[in-house]
Amino acid sequence: MKIEQLGRHILAEFYNCDKELLNDHKLIEKFMVEAAQEAKATIVKSVFHLFNPWGVSGVVVIQESHLTIHTWPEYGYAAVDFFTCGNEVNPWVAFQYMKEKLKSEITETTEVPRGLVDKIKLYSKNQVNPTNFKTSV
Amino acid sequence: MKIEQLGRHILAEFYNCDKELLNDHKLIEKFMVEAAQEAKATIVKSVFHLFNPWGVSGVVVIQESHLTIHTWPEYGYAAVDFFTCGNEVNPWVAFQYMKEKLKSEITETTEVPRGLVDKIKLYSKNQVNPTNFKTSV
Repeated sequence: MKIEQLGRHILAEFYNCDKELLNDHKLIEKFMVEAAQEAKATIVKSVFHLFNPWGVSGVVVIQESHLTIHTWPEYGYAAVDFFTCGNEVNPWVAFQYMKEKLKSEITETTEVPRGLVDKIKLYSKNQVNPTNFKTSV
Repeated sequence: MKIEQLGRHILAEFYNCDKELLNDHKLIEKFMVEAAQEAKATIVKSVFHLFNPWGVSGVVVIQESHLTIHTWPEYGYAAVDFFTCGNEVNPWVAFQYMKEKLKSEITETTEVPRGLVDKIKLYSKNQVNPTNFKTSV
């Protein structure tokens, strides 16, 4: 059975990570960019931020959607999202890369389908017809 | 009953939106930044991208985590995430703002708790002690 969907979104919880590493925003950015590259994504831009007194937030915008991370070094915990579209990029490759780099002992994940095409069509009362779409913007 | 968690994350599906609007990356960026402001978030940076032939991707990095959007104008659909931390920012305010601006007829949402503190403590075998945390980075 194959389901048509526009995006796939992995919500990942990384527990028991290397705490020092979770506070190193340059290294976290490097790993997140590498994770995107490993997954064959095309990077548009990355933005990372170190908080006072600690913690890192960051996003890697990719042609195929985004990767985000928020870390709480004091808890050894990071919340990471891998959102991709298209068949060329595999978000699980990026997940596996981050799991190794953060040295997470326990992870939990949920994959959420985004934009289920049958549901979009149903809700639009079958008025959606992507092949005929034109825009003036 | 109150549950201690580090972040709250709303996954929102916006169906039957204004299709022309979903392809206007400048307006989408304006609305997303305003949504963050309405929710009392502090903006770090926003990055938005218009795709060829259509579709917008963007992120607003906030001090309190992030807002992201991906639009498929040809489907009248947008996938929007509202991830916040702390008690000052209410992600539902941002959600409501975007629902109105995108003129979405049907929305679906899921709120996912990120970083449940009891679980973090359990998984760390109670080795986590945030009040004693020090870092050298």
